[in-house]
Amino acid sequence: MIPRYSRPEMVAIWSPETKFRIWFEIEAHACDAMADLGVIPQENAAAVWKAQDVEFDVARIDEIERETKHDVIAFLTHLAEIIGNDEARFVHQGMTSSDVLDTTLNVQLTRAADILIADMEALLAALKRRAFETKDMVRIGRSHGIHAEPTTMGLTFARFYAEMFRNLRRLKTARAEVATGAISGAVGTFANIDPAVEEHVCAKMGLLPEPISTQVIPRDRHAAFFAALGVVASSIENIATEIRHMQRTEVLEAEEFFSKGQKGSSAMPHKRNPVLTENLTGLARLVRGMVTPALENVTLWHERDISHSSVERMIGPDATVTLDFALARLTNVVENLVVYPDRMLDNMNRFRGLVMSQRVLLALTQAGVSREDAYKLVQRNAMKVWEQGADFQTELLADDDVRAALSEEEIREKFDLGYHTKHVDTIFTRVFGD
Amino acid sequence: MIPRYSRPEMVAIWSPETKFRIWFEIEAHACDAMADLGVIPQENAAAVWKAQDVEFDVARIDEIERETKHDVIAFLTHLAEIIGNDEARFVHQGMTSSDVLDTTLNVQLTRAADILIADMEALLAALKRRAFETKDMVRIGRSHGIHAEPTTMGLTFARFYAEMFRNLRRLKTARAEVATGAISGAVGTFANIDPAVEEHVCAKMGLLPEPISTQVIPRDRHAAFFAALGVVASSIENIATEIRHMQRTEVLEAEEFFSKGQKGSSAMPHKRNPVLTENLTGLARLVRGMVTPALENVTLWHERDISHSSVERMIGPDATVTLDFALARLTNVVENLVVYPDRMLDNMNRFRGLVMSQRVLLALTQAGVSREDAYKLVQRNAMKVWEQGADFQTELLADDDVRAALSEEEIREKFDLGYHTKHVDTIFTRVFGD
Amino acid sequence: MIPRYSRPEMVAIWSPETKFRIWFEIEAHACDAMADLGVIPQENAAAVWKAQDVEFDVARIDEIERETKHDVIAFLTHLAEIIGNDEARFVHQGMTSSDVLDTTLNVQLTRAADILIADMEALLAALKRRAFETKDMVRIGRSHGIHAEPTTMGLTFARFYAEMFRNLRRLKTARAEVATGAISGAVGTFANIDPAVEEHVCAKMGLLPEPISTQVIPRDRHAAFFAALGVVASSIENIATEIRHMQRTEVLEAEEFFSKGQKGSSAMPHKRNPVLTENLTGLARLVRGMVTPALENVTLWHERDISHSSVERMIGPDATVTLDFALARLTNVVENLVVYPDRMLDNMNRFRGLVMSQRVLLALTQAGVSREDAYKLVQRNAMKVWEQGADFQTELLADDDVRAALSEEEIREKFDLGYHTKHVDTIFTRVFGD
Amino acid sequence: MIPRYSRPEMVAIWSPETKFRIWFEIEAHACDAMADLGVIPQENAAAVWKAQDVEFDVARIDEIERETKHDVIAFLTHLAEIIGNDEARFVHQGMTSSDVLDTTLNVQLTRAADILIADMEALLAALKRRAFETKDMVRIGRSHGIHAEPTTMGLTFARFYAEMFRNLRRLKTARAEVATGAISGAVGTFANIDPAVEEHVCAKMGLLPEPISTQVIPRDRHAAFFAALGVVASSIENIATEIRHMQRTEVLEAEEFFSKGQKGSSAMPHKRNPVLTENLTGLARLVRGMVTPALENVTLWHERDISHSSVERMIGPDATVTLDFALARLTNVVENLVVYPDRMLDNMNRFRGLVMSQRVLLALTQAGVSREDAYKLVQRNAMKVWEQGADFQTELLADDDVRAALSEEEIREKFDLGYHTKHVDTIFTRVFGD
Repeated sequence: MIPRYSRPEMVAIWSPETKFRIWFEIEAHACDAMADLGVIPQENAAAVWKAQDVEFDVARIDEIERETKHDVIAFLTHLAEIIGNDEARFVHQGMTSSDVLDTTLNVQLTRAADILIADMEALLAALKRRAFETKDMVRIGRSHGIHAEPTTMGLTFARFYAEMFRNLRRLKTARAEVATGAISGAVGTFANIDPAVEEHVCAKMGLLPEPISTQVIPRDRHAAFFAALGVVASSIENIATEIRHMQRTEVLEAEEFFSKGQKGSSAMPHKRNPVLTENLTGLARLVRGMVTPALENVTLWHERDISHSSVERMIGPDATVTLDFALARLTNVVENLVVYPDRMLDNMNRFRGLVMSQRVLLALTQAGVSREDAYKLVQRNAMKVWEQGADFQTELLADDDVRAALSEEEIREKFDLGYHTKHVDTIFTRVFGD
Repeated sequence: MIPRYSRPEMVAIWSPETKFRIWFEIEAHACDAMADLGVIPQENAAAVWKAQDVEFDVARIDEIERETKHDVIAFLTHLAEIIGNDEARFVHQGMTSSDVLDTTLNVQLTRAADILIADMEALLAALKRRAFETKDMVRIGRSHGIHAEPTTMGLTFARFYAEMFRNLRRLKTARAEVATGAISGAVGTFANIDPAVEEHVCAKMGLLPEPISTQVIPRDRHAAFFAALGVVASSIENIATEIRHMQRTEVLEAEEFFSKGQKGSSAMPHKRNPVLTENLTGLARLVRGMVTPALENVTLWHERDISHSSVERMIGPDATVTLDFALARLTNVVENLVVYPDRMLDNMNRFRGLVMSQRVLLALTQAGVSREDAYKLVQRNAMKVWEQGADFQTELLADDDVRAALSEEEIREKFDLGYHTKHVDTIFTRVFGD
Repeated sequence: MIPRYSRPEMVAIWSPETKFRIWFEIEAHACDAMADLGVIPQENAAAVWKAQDVEFDVARIDEIERETKHDVIAFLTHLAEIIGNDEARFVHQGMTSSDVLDTTLNVQLTRAADILIADMEALLAALKRRAFETKDMVRIGRSHGIHAEPTTMGLTFARFYAEMFRNLRRLKTARAEVATGAISGAVGTFANIDPAVEEHVCAKMGLLPEPISTQVIPRDRHAAFFAALGVVASSIENIATEIRHMQRTEVLEAEEFFSKGQKGSSAMPHKRNPVLTENLTGLARLVRGMVTPALENVTLWHERDISHSSVERMIGPDATVTLDFALARLTNVVENLVVYPDRMLDNMNRFRGLVMSQRVLLALTQAGVSREDAYKLVQRNAMKVWEQGADFQTELLADDDVRAALSEEEIREKFDLGYHTKHVDTIFTRVFGD
Repeated sequence: MIPRYSRPEMVAIWSPETKFRIWFEIEAHACDAMADLGVIPQENAAAVWKAQDVEFDVARIDEIERETKHDVIAFLTHLAEIIGNDEARFVHQGMTSSDVLDTTLNVQLTRAADILIADMEALLAALKRRAFETKDMVRIGRSHGIHAEPTTMGLTFARFYAEMFRNLRRLKTARAEVATGAISGAVGTFANIDPAVEEHVCAKMGLLPEPISTQVIPRDRHAAFFAALGVVASSIENIATEIRHMQRTEVLEAEEFFSKGQKGSSAMPHKRNPVLTENLTGLARLVRGMVTPALENVTLWHERDISHSSVERMIGPDATVTLDFALARLTNVVENLVVYPDRMLDNMNRFRGLVMSQRVLLALTQAGVSREDAYKLVQRNAMKVWEQGADFQTELLADDDVRAALSEEEIREKFDLGYHTKHVDTIFTRVFGD
């Protein structure tokens, strides 16, 4: 997590203040549940809530931790300083640190997921708007980086929309994966605490009770969570790469928005670098690199070892903060992408009609020319275009053997772009609905 | 994919024979659809089905491919040899190779997923049976590899069940991710083929039409598929590691099944190695290693580049074959795992009651002893156990200060295992339902 | 390892025949050493060599293994069938299977490294040849995919040479990492075998004795080996990506060689796909994906667990075979790459001199124009080029304010390509020596 | 990089203050070189050094960057504020930002490597001391977690020493990989700056000139650097795992040092958790997770794209800071590890001599008993040990058939531990030299 690639709302989820606030809520709700069960006095449970609106003193808690070498005890000591030692004496009763820590992590992850989901919805809105805006903007489709057949800019945005819509679904599934809590004790048997406490706390914290935990919530959940983030990051790179390609000097079908204030642009107007999407490419690598550590975290010894903890201290904030930033940056890029329809046409016409050779070949065979002869006819005209810079349609129209098989109208029809765009609306309906 | 770690049913999915059969079906169904649309003659569509029960000659297809350097053309040529050149002349019309190849890959992946899902269900059945069988078999729960509080063997199986049940869900989601097909042409515009063909073929092949494709089906789908396999593999390692720990000489609470025939066991009866679960640990690393290449595959240039193809040729078979083998091996290990309840008790009692020190401490404070004094009381008796090999309960009963606070009955009750197992049924109900 | 991406020499290293031949040599050399030590009779040691030229019957060994469930015993049994039971009775004495298996793996890996090193040397030769051939072939250098300043095609080949030369060094280091053997017994103490045996066998097999082994050779060595392969693969992708970029329709400064026989090319002369380098991109992902499993293999329990074995059975052949194929393919691509110097110039001149704007700006300030004014002067002429398609040099020459600061000659000099290539020879000397 | 797992010296390398100081030095040395070449006036070069002892105002630089959106320009502006606008006017002449940024990164990485090398030397010293201290401390060697043959604690430390010594070598190689600088201009052609400047700056900064760069130093170097860190991290996990195993309740052959002050230990003396080595396991996962992003960074478009930058901003500090912390923590753990030789013997004797069954078997066959009969003899006595808790040596001595082949002395000799430790000194000499 580096400030340069961070946004405050997501960063706040991982602050000590937020963490202690969640710890407090878990402890307070647990006291309520224990009071309802008659395990502790109602007045003690009620007293805890005195700290509800008090800001915890992080420096003070750190100070106590340096002594006790235990973060949860340090917090509880500070809490007792606020609500009174006597009032606090039942707080955390029957619980283990992991009950608080693991449930807190999942509260943080679900809140982080909520932000990512909102980010994704914003990105989807931008992609949809741009898709409809450029629905019929013809550009050449490319396979292997080589011109293939015409498509439209709108279809490009539409497929990114569809991809990110799948990612929205994946993020929602990922959120559900980690939306559980556990207050089940040292090895998960509820020996010292009633399952009803877990149920109450989870309900209040917006989580489901983990059906069976050990000292910790099982880490396959977190692995699935981070794996989903890795897929989303990879899709971000996919879009970023398309834009980087479109912006390269020789293609220049689109550019990242360049604010007037950014100097240097007008003296070297060709030198507008797609630095945002290049940056997104790097950020994608980072998020992807966190998937494997999360997968390795699944294996814990017996009822728990703590190897997962240092990993999560880093990738919990890093993966969510970085992905949040990346989604927001991409949304901004998509929103403001400058598209150049004229350049799209220029590029498509670079080989003066050759991209239509396939259609002409087909038409010749359908007109009864043998496949071998048709190929030769197309070839000899194609080579004139390729080697002498001629125009393919013109050459075909002037070729008697071609004209013997196809009328002028038939030839001209083969160069009609409408042939390629006739199903765009169908596809849009598939993607965006009616 | 190495024979040693492969099972025939999964291997068959990836055979040339299966591949060509799927290609045939796609082409034949596409002809049907085109005939229905009036694009090609009904009799030509019907003629294709003549190859329905003919076995394709893989060697012959390879031979043609060596000439044409194109696999789909080689197949189509062979198909024409079977059904007749004239009858075959409309086969593949308006389609591109990728229409066939990509749709085929997804047919293979969904079939592979079906096997993995069945594997998982078998594993779940085994875990469930063992869980109920050992539900009340008490063993020590461990955090950090160190004795913590009692739990039961059944809870261990039950949590693996719950984890694998989540993995079953993930596998089903993964299957749905890749259960799409595309017959949409060179850049996905349906320029040369009607979307109705795609719909018909997909319906017949058990797939949904990909809402928007380019030359290929978008690779975020496959990335999500392989990522899910990586999570499953990590869970396999989790279970394998638990068993490896249980079998180590000093623990020996369980052993992989050892067939009578396996020599060497009785002259060195202690030397039964958990080689199956060690092997599963390695297999998990392999499957996990295929996640990142799949994530890197998401980014393709423009409407497609073919960089993903070599990756999928390897990880498609490797990941599914290896995971299938691993799931089956794990099921076998779980089914036949020999458990040693006496050793579980021996291990638990290794420190003669010390694991109960926490409960005694709590009881003393609840009986009014100050926390500090209670700690000292527990400590002095604990050290006798630790240093002199005494029995904790005996020492406590003989300590007057302890007895001043707790009666004999109260002390004995602290060593009651029932305290720790009282919620096992509740947890089982959560996991397995009523 | 898939046949499509394999070459026979490397595949042969991993064949059962090769494996058994290495096993035989290790056992035979060990017998010699033991005979020299007087531990076994000389005639028994000598007898083993009777199998020197006998081809082992893999099917027979497999058959025995199915019975004994032990591969080394199966081999020894077959060996005894060849040289006689009595003669064979001291073979393998005091050794454990891992002594043979681990030493064999390292023989295979060093042989594989030898091939990779030879592959790399061939690639280097090709890169060097192409570098000198194109040393002065001017093309535009690009940062962020955007035109920056002129460079030469030769410098591109030269930097790939330098990168691969570093990789050659890394491969040699990697080879040394795994060039050790161990004949040290069940836990590495030489309890049952003299260290002199290890020394003799290693010397004969071209290895150094592992200074301290357990049951196995430590796996940090293999991790370093596979990590080096991952770096090499990434460099392959780097070169492949450059070529893919050069071949894309709008750039077309180079093309993978296209054999006359490959059909389709002349009817769609623009449609020559860089499929070889796209394929190399995918192969790089595969090799890279094997690094992490190799790193995970480093951690083994105590004196060994066998989790590493299944990983190595797959990645040993897969990584070396795939990398060998990739290096050879890349060499072929480099050897035969068709370069288009005219297109390089066309591309460079696409913006009619604008890439020189930086030099003009500098010259103006050096001529005493304030930075601000100089910028405005450059800008107003640059915008004419950008917006109206004018020529930058022409515009500058016609701009009175510019001419007030710079003479015609001075302006023209700014567009001299020699300015950019003046240090090419220096760089070549750095890279290739004098 | 999280404070909890960071040490100040390494963190300081990555501070803005250090970065700006290095930037300054590069710029100042470059001015010196340019003055020597006569390109700029000597007095201007000299003037730059006025900032030598001035602390740069990071907040001020940040402020300027917010305006200019360019970090290097912001720094140069601040530098001019210090040394005077006029004096500063030749600073950075002919250079590009990457010249400064890339050279700086490598200065930071080599400094980080120096710390890691010193860390490693400290770890080696600790391992060596513990190895000699425990050279003859017998413990059971284990394969598959199962008792195999005796070894010594000293051999365990010695093999970790040998492994880390290899890692020291790898770190030194890694340092050399990144110990290059480049001052070669926008696309690496030295068009605007003489190669002599690069040579001078590199010499002063302790680097070698990069033989051929583009806008950036090639990233295969950094990939190799981070890959080496990943190997080191994996070795750390290897040692950490051994210690975690030794500390688990049932083994307890060693424990992480537990300070008297750490509460809770004496009331639950069995509950000393190996949290440091568990933590190291997690940290290893983190460092390993940064290898793949570094490998992906190798591929840059043409003369550079900036995708690598965000990756390096994160993994540069994170990988080095985390590894530095991990090495120091491990050194501390090794230094203070409490070893329990009595428990080692207890564990070894757990099966009352059965680990010697292999030697007895061998002795019987060497005494002329057929292999089959020898096996039966060993087996029937082994089973008494296994099933009835008898002592293996006693049983053998009482077995007439065994005694018919072996004398009492011969039998007793088979249980002599000296047999297993006789080559320990040889191995130590191999590892540590004479």
